Amino acid sequence: MKTTAARNAFYAQSGGVSAVINASACGVIETARRSRHIRKMYAGRHGIIGALTEDLIDTDRESPATIRALKHTPAGAFGSARFKLKGIEQNRSEYQRLIEVFRAHDIGYFFYNGGNDSMDTALKVSQIGAALGYPVTCVGVPKTVDNDLPHTDCCPGFGSVAKYVAVSTREAALDVASMARTSTKVFVLEVMGRHAGWIAAAGGLAGRGSAEPPHLILFPEIPFDKARFLERVRACVSGYGYCVIVVSEGAAYADGRFLAEAGTRDAFGHTQLGGVAPLVADMVREAHGYKYHWAVADYLQRSARHIASRVDVEQAYAVGKAAVELAVRGVNAVMPTIVRRSHRPYRWSIGHVPLAQVANKEKKLPAAFIREDGFGITAACRRYLEPLIAGEAYPPYRNGLPDYVHIKGVAVRRKLSTDFKV
Amino acid sequence: MKTTAARNAFYAQSGGVSAVINASACGVIETARRSRHIRKMYAGRHGIIGALTEDLIDTDRESPATIRALKHTPAGAFGSARFKLKGIEQNRSEYQRLIEVFRAHDIGYFFYNGGNDSMDTALKVSQIGAALGYPVTCVGVPKTVDNDLPHTDCCPGFGSVAKYVAVSTREAALDVASMARTSTKVFVLEVMGRHAGWIAAAGGLAGRGSAEPPHLILFPEIPFDKARFLERVRACVSGYGYCVIVVSEGAAYADGRFLAEAGTRDAFGHTQLGGVAPLVADMVREAHGYKYHWAVADYLQRSARHIASRVDVEQAYAVGKAAVELAVRGVNAVMPTIVRRSHRPYRWSIGHVPLAQVANKEKKLPAAFIREDGFGITAACRRYLEPLIAGEAYPPYRNGLPDYVHIKGVAVRRKLSTDFKV
Repeated sequence: MKTTAARNAFYAQSGGVSAVINASACGVIETARRSRHIRKMYAGRHGIIGALTEDLIDTDRESPATIRALKHTPAGAFGSARFKLKGIEQNRSEYQRLIEVFRAHDIGYFFYNGGNDSMDTALKVSQIGAALGYPVTCVGVPKTVDNDLPHTDCCPGFGSVAKYVAVSTREAALDVASMARTSTKVFVLEVMGRHAGWIAAAGGLAGRGSAEPPHLILFPEIPFDKARFLERVRACVSGYGYCVIVVSEGAAYADGRFLAEAGTRDAFGHTQLGGVAPLVADMVREAHGYKYHWAVADYLQRSARHIASRVDVEQAYAVGKAAVELAVRGVNAVMPTIVRRSHRPYRWSIGHVPLAQVANKEKKLPAAFIREDGFGITAACRRYLEPLIAGEAYPPYRNGLPDYVHIKGVAVRRKLSTDFKV
Repeated sequence: MKTTAARNAFYAQSGGVSAVINASACGVIETARRSRHIRKMYAGRHGIIGALTEDLIDTDRESPATIRALKHTPAGAFGSARFKLKGIEQNRSEYQRLIEVFRAHDIGYFFYNGGNDSMDTALKVSQIGAALGYPVTCVGVPKTVDNDLPHTDCCPGFGSVAKYVAVSTREAALDVASMARTSTKVFVLEVMGRHAGWIAAAGGLAGRGSAEPPHLILFPEIPFDKARFLERVRACVSGYGYCVIVVSEGAAYADGRFLAEAGTRDAFGHTQLGGVAPLVADMVREAHGYKYHWAVADYLQRSARHIASRVDVEQAYAVGKAAVELAVRGVNAVMPTIVRRSHRPYRWSIGHVPLAQVANKEKKLPAAFIREDGFGITAACRRYLEPLIAGEAYPPYRNGLPDYVHIKGVAVRRKLSTDFKV
């Protein structure tokens, strides 16, 4: 039963998507449907751009089964956007436009599902709304495979990419071990993680100790020392017969230059990376002549809902649900967080933190999580990571393929006569 | 109960491994354990090299649980080898050595688990054994992710890599679709398949019709026409907002040159490929300026037991079992085959074919399986492929990771005083 004072709400997906961001959307929408305080939940088509261009999706037109199926569907069902709103000083008109659209559609709640940049946007929207006399309750919904948001034990999206990378490393390592006697001796897997080595660290879960693959991990946090690296590769091949390497796309030299730069920049001004695996493999061949193979997981890792972590899916849903619960209680400018209660058995609950404390901040891999030699993870890191990849949450299958859902995406009738160019 | 006339047997894994070659090993060993005609089953450590160097693994020292667990463990548990025996004329000594080792260990059965090259080796062993007065019953066990063995409906190993590629393509395509409005517009996934486009074709299962991703498949069978390709990419991005491309590592120009050659050759004299995805992506950027991402699945695709096809696992086991049953019935120089009885419902049985008919032959993707425009698969291809990826066969998990087995690998006591240099 909706109250007469119920307001509409807006939800948008932002930045790089993940295997479980739709599980957060499911949590947001299902919880909003049950809330007396929220009348209609609109979603931005392609994230915040949908708000700016008044291209709103009416989520009420999606069946309960479709909304439920979002929980097992990867990527951004409503469309995401790499679109960073500038500072209020530089581009006040974008924020004013958002408030104009919100006012036209009686939107009183703003849910923004993203990473560091997005939390900054959510914070700014909460500020300008108040300044313009149209207060909006803004709650961030954490999402980033990079796991680099502060003040939360982990970020929804990370556990599943971590599981994918750990599983893939274990599997590929068995392959290389089979072949090494006469063929491939070195295998390099490139994984995501621009500035923080969380995903690369997850590769370390595939084995235990330096004798089990992956034998070497190249973290962004540890300056790349070519000579030391090549010597370690040689020692691995001599000692174990082969060498499995997990390299972060953000691996860099001591002066900060990435090992591989594609040379382009995205809308956030970040350098677009890719291709460090072939580069590292080639270094090895040049130095030692070993036969190599390399893989670049790229989008496969972050969209791999088929091997999602059950814990991650549950947490993604829980932060979506908590965001709505906080908002309707009037808690503004916050982000729900995951709070770890115990390692083993793994227990967690939901807390929250002011957006101002998370906006534009990055949490790097702590030094205590990186092995002293710089090429592996510590027991403390393993204790932190293991619970995050626990449990499977298989999607349903049809004809041998995951049965992922597509939304109808019916547009809400526009109320404004003005267009907005993004 | 073993008969007094029971002989020992030898099993070896050969060439590139797969997600289910160990399931064939499981079929071979479990069936041999039940057979009155086979006393002991030895496995070659690192394939045929184990036989040449008299490095035999006593599979009797592995528990029934370990042998059973091979069914859910990817790659080659006994070690594989890329080692092609030369023709008998060029290197009679290798064959003589094999027979010498077989004679020393009373090996009367030879099971060789591999692809085209390996079936040729098995055939030669059957011939020289007879010529040297030590007849060995030789049965090939088909295995190749490339699906290019003739006279069998499909090859164990292929169904699982096909499922991996179809699932990954579907997932990554959802990711790109989410991002395309403001970011990545083109995604390129590179898959295996040196000379035949079977694996690339499997990517086509991710969507239906040319409007659904993957929008374009680049087959080795279709000469690459850069201008036509680039025009199609442009049309996709204009029409659908994005473009997903699956490219075979074997994609080549009309004159036969591969798009990308790593420049090295393996023991079989094949060119080692890799890196066509970044090359294709770069062509697109150069022509159209679209932001792109690319992935190279490499070993991840063929070791991905976590997403194996249940049909594939069952067939891999069945050909291993059938190989032993044929051998103990005295059927020599054959390979068990998969015989398709019906498409829908999918029904199959096991047949067999003389090794002479499969050795060194390659089955390419039929022209009728490739869409007229050369960039997709036909309904006939879909009808063929769909049953092969049907069903899931998840491995057990522990601590969030697949619980794959490692053999003890106890060596059989050597009987020969001579060494053999490989």
